[in-house]
Amino acid sequence: MMKFSINRNAFMNELSIIQRAISSKTTIPILTGVKIVLSEEGLSLTGSNGDISIETFLSHEDEKAEMVIEQTGAIVLQARFLGEIIRKLPDTRFSFDLQENNQIHLTSGAADFMINGLDADQYPHLPAIDEAEQLKLPVRVLNKLINETVFAVSAHESRPILTGVHLTIHPEELKAVATDSHRLAQRKIPLGGMAKELDMVIPGKSLIELSRSFTDEEEEVEVSVMENQVLFKTDSMHFYSRLLEGKYPDTDRLIPNEFNTEISFDVPALLAAIERASLFSHEGRNNIVKLVISADDVTLYGNSPEVGNVQEQLVFQEVSGDPLEISFNPDYMKAALKAFGDTAITIKFISPLRPFTLEPKDSDISFVQLITPVRTS
Amino acid sequence: MMKFSINRNAFMNELSIIQRAISSKTTIPILTGVKIVLSEEGLSLTGSNGDISIETFLSHEDEKAEMVIEQTGAIVLQARFLGEIIRKLPDTRFSFDLQENNQIHLTSGAADFMINGLDADQYPHLPAIDEAEQLKLPVRVLNKLINETVFAVSAHESRPILTGVHLTIHPEELKAVATDSHRLAQRKIPLGGMAKELDMVIPGKSLIELSRSFTDEEEEVEVSVMENQVLFKTDSMHFYSRLLEGKYPDTDRLIPNEFNTEISFDVPALLAAIERASLFSHEGRNNIVKLVISADDVTLYGNSPEVGNVQEQLVFQEVSGDPLEISFNPDYMKAALKAFGDTAITIKFISPLRPFTLEPKDSDISFVQLITPVRTS
Repeated sequence: MMKFSINRNAFMNELSIIQRAISSKTTIPILTGVKIVLSEEGLSLTGSNGDISIETFLSHEDEKAEMVIEQTGAIVLQARFLGEIIRKLPDTRFSFDLQENNQIHLTSGAADFMINGLDADQYPHLPAIDEAEQLKLPVRVLNKLINETVFAVSAHESRPILTGVHLTIHPEELKAVATDSHRLAQRKIPLGGMAKELDMVIPGKSLIELSRSFTDEEEEVEVSVMENQVLFKTDSMHFYSRLLEGKYPDTDRLIPNEFNTEISFDVPALLAAIERASLFSHEGRNNIVKLVISADDVTLYGNSPEVGNVQEQLVFQEVSGDPLEISFNPDYMKAALKAFGDTAITIKFISPLRPFTLEPKDSDISFVQLITPVRTS
Repeated sequence: MMKFSINRNAFMNELSIIQRAISSKTTIPILTGVKIVLSEEGLSLTGSNGDISIETFLSHEDEKAEMVIEQTGAIVLQARFLGEIIRKLPDTRFSFDLQENNQIHLTSGAADFMINGLDADQYPHLPAIDEAEQLKLPVRVLNKLINETVFAVSAHESRPILTGVHLTIHPEELKAVATDSHRLAQRKIPLGGMAKELDMVIPGKSLIELSRSFTDEEEEVEVSVMENQVLFKTDSMHFYSRLLEGKYPDTDRLIPNEFNTEISFDVPALLAAIERASLFSHEGRNNIVKLVISADDVTLYGNSPEVGNVQEQLVFQEVSGDPLEISFNPDYMKAALKAFGDTAITIKFISPLRPFTLEPKDSDISFVQLITPVRTS
């Protein structure tokens, strides 16, 4: 019968990570639980919602854990409830002792708990994945890739494949694409011939949780794929996600490469002006703002018949090509600009009705975003 | 036609205060607005939801405001929308210019706004209150009084009078009482013969907003009453609340003064144990915890048939009188303990079915709380 004692904060850190995978809305009761497995090597916690599963491992050699193992074993406890207890324990340590009938006797200071659990054998098995490493990336690089693309996935289930990010991996390059058919974000990362060929569509929600689950940006993450599952693996965490099935549309042909008007901006200044204009567009029915580019000046307009309007001359770095008047959804522009961060970008236009692109200015980074304008009048 | 320029942050501070009074759910459209009145002396903003009204005043002599007055006047603008604009302005200053048709021309940096407003004459008048000062208190003292009582008001409209705090003012003493008929909080403050006789019931919600609206604990607040309104007045703010009509029950007779068991605790340690026990009681149907006092030890029990149970020997300061076993709602106990803060208290019991009291230990402060126990079995 499992028995150990451990530092409260070290245990809570692990539990917080796997709680990201646990949904209170699940229809499978055991998935509200955390599976706790103690081996001679240390403590493993698992949480899952069926779509994503997270498994953490805390080595008994980790000094902060102050782990004392008396007997190995396994149990499933209600995760949210266990978390509330751990957070409120009177002492910095607690002991954990599996009794008859899947009950846990947990003690800390003068507090003495009996907590009802479930047999660990009833917990679903995680997908079996061939752990031969197929791709290895710094966590920092993967996190940046996710932040640069995932906001552009579709929020609607009408075309489920578009709710994911399309990853295409060649030995020399990783390409990530997301689109909801109104806007698109594409980021490429050079790999230097290290990876195997891979093609998969990972649900956007999984990538958001993955990004939040990493605790150390300096770690490396290994990516492995098998059938309909992908595994992201660091020293302390295994993160599983199902993959989306179906064929992702060919997006390469959507990105234009000849333009008639080009203009460059500092992102923070343009973002602030877009936010001001969107205050008005959000009050109207159409949610569009208008950008007017002439040889001498560039003006942004936001308008709502009910509440008023704003016009603002924009500060830009350079402008070239034809004059242009174009209308677009400012929310797509805001999301796109936030993904660039504090840098300078070039926006390239063909005509008022053709999609326009945003790219970093003066940079070798292969990151392009596409926004479809809105026809007015 | 009103025209002025002002520092953005100074204006935003005033607007944030009056926004506390503004509800987006109001059925009176003009009450979603802020009334802006500029006089030679400075700028006054007013917000109201019909129950409470807040009026702030920013003097043109306030250096932080950097106010330049060109012409006095008044307008009503949609408060939430104006706040969003002010927060996103490109410059630290803005100018504000009333045009034809109640439109405001607002400029800041290169941004140029036209905002639709309403005629200030259409804004409801605030209650006329005889401003003869009837009571004067430091903000700090009033805030503490509110925090010590307002949590005990009733949340149910079945007896509206109990949703307020009952203030009784004599020349020598101010008494504040709140009860929801399950628990009661009573705080008395000596006044030193300065005040007039007053008796009023102020809605708990108004007092919570009042407490949050004060920006300087060192200020004095003057209290004036007229018919069904009360005015709290500081140098920078007038806060009006309606009063509750009806007769507040006589609560003095509810507070017992003979007891059979007394025990004293440090509040933080008892509060932590109550929170642990309540984790289990919240999972059950009855939400009760059990306290067992014997000559030698004091134990707290929390139990839920579904999830488990906890028992904990409590650390206490002193105990005297009869042994006792008593059950109560831990949420009432938690709220009561939080109102005492980090101090020591004495809990006094008559019997398992009679209300018990909590009072500060070793203190002259007249603050008593009453909790009704729950009959078990």
